[in-house]
Amino acid sequence: MPDAPIADLIVTDALIVTADADFTVIEGAAVAVRDGRIAALGPAAEIGREASEVIDAGGAILMPGLVNSHCHAGDSLFRGLVEDLPLEPWLQTVWKAERAILNRDTVRLGATLGFAELLLSGVTSVMDMFWFPDQAVHAARDLGMRVATGGIFIDFPGVDHVTHDDRLRAAKAFFAEFDGAEDVFPTIMPHGSYTVGPDNLTSAKALAEEYGALFSTHAAETQAEQTDIANRYGRSVIRHLDHLGLLDARTVLAHCVWLDDEEVEILARTGATVSHNPVSNLKLASGIARIPDLLRAGARVTIGTDGAISGNDLDMWMALRLAATLHRGATRRADAVSTRQALAMVTREGAAALGALDRIGSLEPGKFADMILIDTSRVHATPIFDPMTHIVFSTAKSDVRDVFVSGRRVVKDGALTGIDIAETLARVRALTPEIAASIA
Amino acid sequence: MPDAPIADLIVTDALIVTADADFTVIEGAAVAVRDGRIAALGPAAEIGREASEVIDAGGAILMPGLVNSHCHAGDSLFRGLVEDLPLEPWLQTVWKAERAILNRDTVRLGATLGFAELLLSGVTSVMDMFWFPDQAVHAARDLGMRVATGGIFIDFPGVDHVTHDDRLRAAKAFFAEFDGAEDVFPTIMPHGSYTVGPDNLTSAKALAEEYGALFSTHAAETQAEQTDIANRYGRSVIRHLDHLGLLDARTVLAHCVWLDDEEVEILARTGATVSHNPVSNLKLASGIARIPDLLRAGARVTIGTDGAISGNDLDMWMALRLAATLHRGATRRADAVSTRQALAMVTREGAAALGALDRIGSLEPGKFADMILIDTSRVHATPIFDPMTHIVFSTAKSDVRDVFVSGRRVVKDGALTGIDIAETLARVRALTPEIAASIA
Repeated sequence: MPDAPIADLIVTDALIVTADADFTVIEGAAVAVRDGRIAALGPAAEIGREASEVIDAGGAILMPGLVNSHCHAGDSLFRGLVEDLPLEPWLQTVWKAERAILNRDTVRLGATLGFAELLLSGVTSVMDMFWFPDQAVHAARDLGMRVATGGIFIDFPGVDHVTHDDRLRAAKAFFAEFDGAEDVFPTIMPHGSYTVGPDNLTSAKALAEEYGALFSTHAAETQAEQTDIANRYGRSVIRHLDHLGLLDARTVLAHCVWLDDEEVEILARTGATVSHNPVSNLKLASGIARIPDLLRAGARVTIGTDGAISGNDLDMWMALRLAATLHRGATRRADAVSTRQALAMVTREGAAALGALDRIGSLEPGKFADMILIDTSRVHATPIFDPMTHIVFSTAKSDVRDVFVSGRRVVKDGALTGIDIAETLARVRALTPEIAASIA
Repeated sequence: MPDAPIADLIVTDALIVTADADFTVIEGAAVAVRDGRIAALGPAAEIGREASEVIDAGGAILMPGLVNSHCHAGDSLFRGLVEDLPLEPWLQTVWKAERAILNRDTVRLGATLGFAELLLSGVTSVMDMFWFPDQAVHAARDLGMRVATGGIFIDFPGVDHVTHDDRLRAAKAFFAEFDGAEDVFPTIMPHGSYTVGPDNLTSAKALAEEYGALFSTHAAETQAEQTDIANRYGRSVIRHLDHLGLLDARTVLAHCVWLDDEEVEILARTGATVSHNPVSNLKLASGIARIPDLLRAGARVTIGTDGAISGNDLDMWMALRLAATLHRGATRRADAVSTRQALAMVTREGAAALGALDRIGSLEPGKFADMILIDTSRVHATPIFDPMTHIVFSTAKSDVRDVFVSGRRVVKDGALTGIDIAETLARVRALTPEIAASIA
């Protein structure tokens, strides 16, 4: 590549899993980064070493940063606090703790805790639904990752003590503050159809359309929710959302565990994304989502960790492994979800759900250099016959050695470069007795 | 504790999760080890620091080493080789690779690879079923861990090219060689009732009884196996085994996915152990075992990783998390498996399955000092409200910092002390092309 201008960064001698449309894999490869974007990618000899910084991957896997399509990072403060309850009584206790503990400062602290866990594990973009979403952006920026968030809606005062109209105004202010930011995907986030009425859902969606924002809500997480919505509105959850005109390619629905055949078809037809959260769905006894049916119908499926209060961590690798294996076990079909389908869920499909497949979700020239290096020298990484199989079925979060967002190394040798995480952890530990007392 | 003799080792300032019958937890605690056994355990101030070596745990969790009740460590050589098939055709391809690759040397290599992965993750005792079981013992001894293995039985020549009578003789030779060894639990291991006929199963069991050995076999892993056995013998798998007199408290049955109500009762009544292998059962599309029903009936349930060729790793922590959450999701009951029940499966119940609860499976005076230190300083370990909840729902294999077997530190700061693992990994990598070609 003799004519290429000098790059800011070259990562060389990598086993590159591009996650492009053909799932191209290149051994002994390199990627050159300029101005935060991938300038070139190919055999190491062709890319050369002309760059301000050259990182030798030593044969490690280089792949796109993961996209987590559903999270409540701030809830990491409450990890392991409320146990052994199904969703509905569990949520009542969670909300009690949230009301007692959360304010703008503690939300920022919780977001930092949650995002740090995600970034260390290779998640470079996350859709996050939580109180005071501007605090999530500030926490994400400190760490150097991207976040989809924005207007939060729920039909009671909540932690933020505001009305629906206040929330519409807050969302507009959020959109104005982060207008044009490359690290923010503006999103309108009503909590769910059982906590936000039809009028408020539609006015929230109208605001999303006015600003070209994404729209995300919890949907069909439990059987009880389906019964509740059917009793209130005479329609099941997905039909209710469809009837209100809320489903399109800019919509991300978290969970979708309880669907009938027609709802599966509605999701495929409207282009709405299903964010599959298997770790949370199992822990909270919600059920097992019909992921193979959704894939067969052509619906977009992505993966989320949900919050650490339900999870009890934010492990996208465990969620990925479950997305690839749980449905094989549940349907007794060894081809229920393929390795490629699972890998796509955490990369290119996640990016598409954010409306950002032109910028992230695969390693291709022109896209942001959001990349992760996977250590393949470990015992459980030996042998490797196929790197995509290794990524989906044998990789652990602790294998993520380096993380780059827009070419900037935000995790180096397993440590965050953006913040002093020890200070965050000390603050969380200091708050722990008060959190425990909040539900006593 | 002024009268206590000087110890060989004291681990102090630990959060000790004993896994004793009352699941006692002691903060700011210490354990004193003498001659490989726990001499005393209690508040750090009472235990003192009079020992040849004192390790300050810095508040980390100290708990018993994990017991993995079903594994084929040698199969780690084939990790990720055979993908996307249900058990029966999958097994045919696996056996093809095994026949081409395995001999005493490569079995030793594979066992070292698999046991290294297990020991690094805190597994101190493993029941392992594989060709040339003496090689497994040698591999385990190099690393410093305990293994339950012994006579291997299958009704065709297999990798070892021997007859049933040869195998009976080999088992006797194994028992003679390792008679009285503290690190070996002698075990008779017929592959399964679909690969070993009734006469050979009963003669194998007779040999186990003669030597006081354990007895372990695959059972009711798939629906196809149940149909096969019912067609051959007119009885379902568990009834067939019971009819042959093979089920008692010294028997460990791997999988038990497909059980009817009466088979659940048979397992509870006979005292046979069910080794639950959720990672493998999902990946191979075998199904979801009826663990809550087994627990309710009073059956003993333990956890296995199965082999890395089905898994595709040997992650007891993922298996533990799944044992605790999968059945909540599958039954929609948030109390389907309790935190204590799950923790017991990998500690005291696993030890009981090996007939060794008097020696391992909990931290109590008089038992072997098989202990692991869990790093609790990580982001995903913050906050901790309850250490047992943390162990079951948030701990990852990479959190295991130190591992002790009979008080000897076999993993120190995440690295093996017994062998040079890099040499093992290099040998496995050198063998990889030949393995790939074996099924081409």
